[in-house]
Amino acid sequence: MFALGVIMALISFTMDFTVSRMLNAHSWLQQQLGDNMLLRYLSWIVYPIALVAFSTGFAQSITPHSGGSGIPELKTILTGVILEEYLTIKNFGAKVVGLTCTLAAGSTMFLGKVGPFVHLSSMIAAYLGRMRSSVTGDYENKSKEHEMLVAAAAVGVSTVFGAPISGVLFSIEVMSSHFAIRNYWRGFFAATCGAFMFRLLAVFNSEQVTISAVFKTNFKISFPFDLPETFFFMILGVICGAVGCAYLFCQRWLLGYVRRNRFTSMLLANDKPVYSALVALLVASITFPESLGQFLASRLSMKELLTSLFDNRTWWVLSQNASLERPSVVDPNNLWLEWANPQITVFGTLLFFIVMKFWMFILATTLPMPAGYFMPVFVYGASIGRLVGETVSYIFPNGISSGGVLNPIIPGGYALAGAAAYSGSVTHTLSTALLAFEATGQIAHILPVILSVLVANAITQKFQPSFYDGTIIVKKLPYLPRIRSRQINSYKVNTETFMNTDVKALSTDANFEDVFRVITSSEDPEFPVVENTESHVLVGKVKRSQLIHFLETHESQQQTQSKTSCEGKLEDGCEIEPITFQLSTWTSLHEAHHLFELLSLQHVFVTKSGKIVGNVTRKELRKAIEDLANPK
Amino acid sequence: MFALGVIMALISFTMDFTVSRMLNAHSWLQQQLGDNMLLRYLSWIVYPIALVAFSTGFAQSITPHSGGSGIPELKTILTGVILEEYLTIKNFGAKVVGLTCTLAAGSTMFLGKVGPFVHLSSMIAAYLGRMRSSVTGDYENKSKEHEMLVAAAAVGVSTVFGAPISGVLFSIEVMSSHFAIRNYWRGFFAATCGAFMFRLLAVFNSEQVTISAVFKTNFKISFPFDLPETFFFMILGVICGAVGCAYLFCQRWLLGYVRRNRFTSMLLANDKPVYSALVALLVASITFPESLGQFLASRLSMKELLTSLFDNRTWWVLSQNASLERPSVVDPNNLWLEWANPQITVFGTLLFFIVMKFWMFILATTLPMPAGYFMPVFVYGASIGRLVGETVSYIFPNGISSGGVLNPIIPGGYALAGAAAYSGSVTHTLSTALLAFEATGQIAHILPVILSVLVANAITQKFQPSFYDGTIIVKKLPYLPRIRSRQINSYKVNTETFMNTDVKALSTDANFEDVFRVITSSEDPEFPVVENTESHVLVGKVKRSQLIHFLETHESQQQTQSKTSCEGKLEDGCEIEPITFQLSTWTSLHEAHHLFELLSLQHVFVTKSGKIVGNVTRKELRKAIEDLANPK
Repeated sequence: MFALGVIMALISFTMDFTVSRMLNAHSWLQQQLGDNMLLRYLSWIVYPIALVAFSTGFAQSITPHSGGSGIPELKTILTGVILEEYLTIKNFGAKVVGLTCTLAAGSTMFLGKVGPFVHLSSMIAAYLGRMRSSVTGDYENKSKEHEMLVAAAAVGVSTVFGAPISGVLFSIEVMSSHFAIRNYWRGFFAATCGAFMFRLLAVFNSEQVTISAVFKTNFKISFPFDLPETFFFMILGVICGAVGCAYLFCQRWLLGYVRRNRFTSMLLANDKPVYSALVALLVASITFPESLGQFLASRLSMKELLTSLFDNRTWWVLSQNASLERPSVVDPNNLWLEWANPQITVFGTLLFFIVMKFWMFILATTLPMPAGYFMPVFVYGASIGRLVGETVSYIFPNGISSGGVLNPIIPGGYALAGAAAYSGSVTHTLSTALLAFEATGQIAHILPVILSVLVANAITQKFQPSFYDGTIIVKKLPYLPRIRSRQINSYKVNTETFMNTDVKALSTDANFEDVFRVITSSEDPEFPVVENTESHVLVGKVKRSQLIHFLETHESQQQTQSKTSCEGKLEDGCEIEPITFQLSTWTSLHEAHHLFELLSLQHVFVTKSGKIVGNVTRKELRKAIEDLANPK
Repeated sequence: MFALGVIMALISFTMDFTVSRMLNAHSWLQQQLGDNMLLRYLSWIVYPIALVAFSTGFAQSITPHSGGSGIPELKTILTGVILEEYLTIKNFGAKVVGLTCTLAAGSTMFLGKVGPFVHLSSMIAAYLGRMRSSVTGDYENKSKEHEMLVAAAAVGVSTVFGAPISGVLFSIEVMSSHFAIRNYWRGFFAATCGAFMFRLLAVFNSEQVTISAVFKTNFKISFPFDLPETFFFMILGVICGAVGCAYLFCQRWLLGYVRRNRFTSMLLANDKPVYSALVALLVASITFPESLGQFLASRLSMKELLTSLFDNRTWWVLSQNASLERPSVVDPNNLWLEWANPQITVFGTLLFFIVMKFWMFILATTLPMPAGYFMPVFVYGASIGRLVGETVSYIFPNGISSGGVLNPIIPGGYALAGAAAYSGSVTHTLSTALLAFEATGQIAHILPVILSVLVANAITQKFQPSFYDGTIIVKKLPYLPRIRSRQINSYKVNTETFMNTDVKALSTDANFEDVFRVITSSEDPEFPVVENTESHVLVGKVKRSQLIHFLETHESQQQTQSKTSCEGKLEDGCEIEPITFQLSTWTSLHEAHHLFELLSLQHVFVTKSGKIVGNVTRKELRKAIEDLANPK
């Protein structure tokens, strides 16, 4: 666990370091080119195009599983489905190199690193787990592995934001529907090690004097917000929830459309780098700082974007007093100048940013390269919050009076709430609220932020599956839908109505022919064993591999003994495993669903008075739940 | 959920209000008495004695279940054991009145309100649940009730500290070993409503200008701590862990001793108020501010104690500059003056406080009245932290240099870490770290605080059961010990070795006499039903109540039909329930334990090739785990 935390922190830090160097080099290049507009344009677009194309090409050439964030696949693995190639060490290299290139493309591509880090961290965990089990033997292997993966997800989040508590919570919320307190401990320990190392390295590198928050804010603590403002925070929650729904819908639609459309699907099948390069060309051309990019604050990196949005000053007040000359280089102490535009004011730039980045980010998520989608969502939410905050502060320039004293409104607090609410609504999590506090080092806005997150979540959960579930659906990974609490019918539907009754059972005294007949007629990984063919009383189960082995030994026996009567019985030749779990025909759909989730089951036999009558797999369960939602 | 949150917030606020009025009245009385030492002493001791005796008498006269914090009992209920009387509304009244009196006794008794609030909140939840189910019908009742109880625990914590996130986490950590994300949502919603209302009421009552933290701190954020200080924070963690172990051990010992000792056990059995009064007399005499109490800061209330310990100033520096005249009344802006004593300095008072409160608090936990034990533990931890912090700051008066700049050490940060680490170690939770941040409104010390909490927890978990588990053990409530991860044998011990083989099975065609024989020979609540007495194949189970009903109908039949041969079979007369879960003889102890915890099972039948061979209840499981820890 400790090793996991430290390794991930080192990787995260090295990657950050490399990326910031590459970004600096790029902006240096931009400056050197002087006034030649064409050259500047070319250097602006060539850089991300090259990086994105390389990232796609490199990652895809090693393994196609390295694309995307990796969280949806990990979520599937944790439900008990085995996706072998997904956690190999080969994948690891592809992901690290690819992700570094993606991040180096900067805010132009508007992509982050949380998802891939969760994936990277789980790959290391799986690797460490294999190393350990080769030393200590094979006991308790499977459950340990599961624990390691959950902890790994926590480490991934915490090393990116330096936020151990919310890292653990976020991974729990996203990854599983039930979890053991014990895992939570392990995750906590590993995440703390990771976050500590990550922040420590920043100190050693003289970036900071001591350990402190990643995106430090400086709000007025003594009076963070006024009571009537909670109302606006709730409105912000509603807006974030609505935009979140729209985003999730469009994103799923576009992911599907890109696969259906003949041109893009051809490109994606054969020339992935070309597709990436085309998208990068489009996006980079729009964000060119001399044209539309000037309204998009496109010279800021992802980190600078977030820092600027969490600014404790009120932009529209500042922009009235200062001259709005844009400096030729980004001024790290006045990042907000990038947002101030004399023609369309800060409100204009923020609105333009929100509108444009909406579709640009959706487009970026279709790229088949390693990339995280959490950070952009977080930044996007912060910009929504900032817009709302600036507007509220514009309407009430002296603050809303609740007592005698007037306190000005802090738009940065709205940006914080917006970031937490929007990212929370897209991922269906609440821990983003905590993440916002841990990342900024201030917790004064706790109640309004939680309120916005709750409101935004309530809206999105009602109308859309989460970002990760959506990707699982589009990628057609095995998936068990949730039963909503208002679907009261799930208590009334019994297993009897949706189970698969076509079960091939073997009796304990089954001979070679019986086994052969059963095994060729079905693809099931396990077969039930019954006492005898008349009573059909379930006594155990047998694995397909065992049966094949049984047939093989039998065949070789037959050959050596030249077809004498060797009536080998099943119970002698195979290991019949006991059944610890079975459903009855009366079990309700709700209960069955609960047990499948709780125990990560893949399939279960159904019995009636001890006699086997059917079986239920995730497929049947899913169909039953879908029928419930859309009754015929 | 909403109602639950609001009701609890109202109760919490009203109670706080009443208590603070009563405390004010008491200190006003103390002042009025002037210089007459005897009168002052009498008024100082009579007040808590009367309150404590009344609290004990009142609560115990209504129901003996209202004593203590209530969390251990609630924890037992959540594992599936039914403690009927424990959640009645009668209990509620006893607890509210008793608790108010306990709290009004102030810091003299050194007791808190978290535990009882969790209990109160779960009683309201159970009541609301019953009301709701009487409206909507009986479906889904049991699982909903469970969900409500978990959420209720979260509400209890969050309304006391105004801390929704850590309230949810704390309740999860304390209450269960596994939990569903879905419950977490509900808890979150209710807790936020509760915390919001609670803070809102404070604003309406003009205590505060706007919503802010309960124990607001004012640390320097730009430089909260220096890197080498993490070392001292870890030492603090070790100290807290060690003291936590000592405390838990002594507390369990004293609880047992008080029950064994003839004098105290007699008092506890017959005259509980007298016992309480005696303890209160002893404690109040010691804390009398004119004698030993002057070294114990005994004039401060619980809240003031905590606020003073979290002070951002350095006491030993202050005490060098100021005159140490103690004001005749507590000065709310200079609470630290209560700690400063010219004879023994602040270090002396802090050390004396720690030593004296150690046994005084343990003594207070034996009182049979409604009282919470979390808040005192939190304050106690803060005092340990303050002592360590002051010492470190005394040794390095200019701060520890890590770069060129020297920054003074903030002892308040250590107090924060100490409070979190000590309370975390006593309750075996990590969320106390978050609670400290939510309660103080500052999160700058996040990493060192988490480090101390982790270290303290690691130590206590290794050597002692948690406060709640300890109480469960002493009170002899049903309890399932944890299997430690290093007990690798738990994978090797099979169910076969520890199951109870003496199972009374009924066959499906059992007649009146068979049933009668079985039911009189055993006290089990459920009986297995087998296909027939020869094969012993398990087909279902039948409840004891069903069997009794079967016998009764049978008897009345016999009477009416005047003893003709009415051979009513079991399968016709009773509802045979299907078995969804069974263990096999090969199941390992570890797996069995996991499943019992996960599914809140009470007992399970063991089968071998479909035939019933035994059963396992929590009793057998517990014995097996204990044997594992102490091999013969």
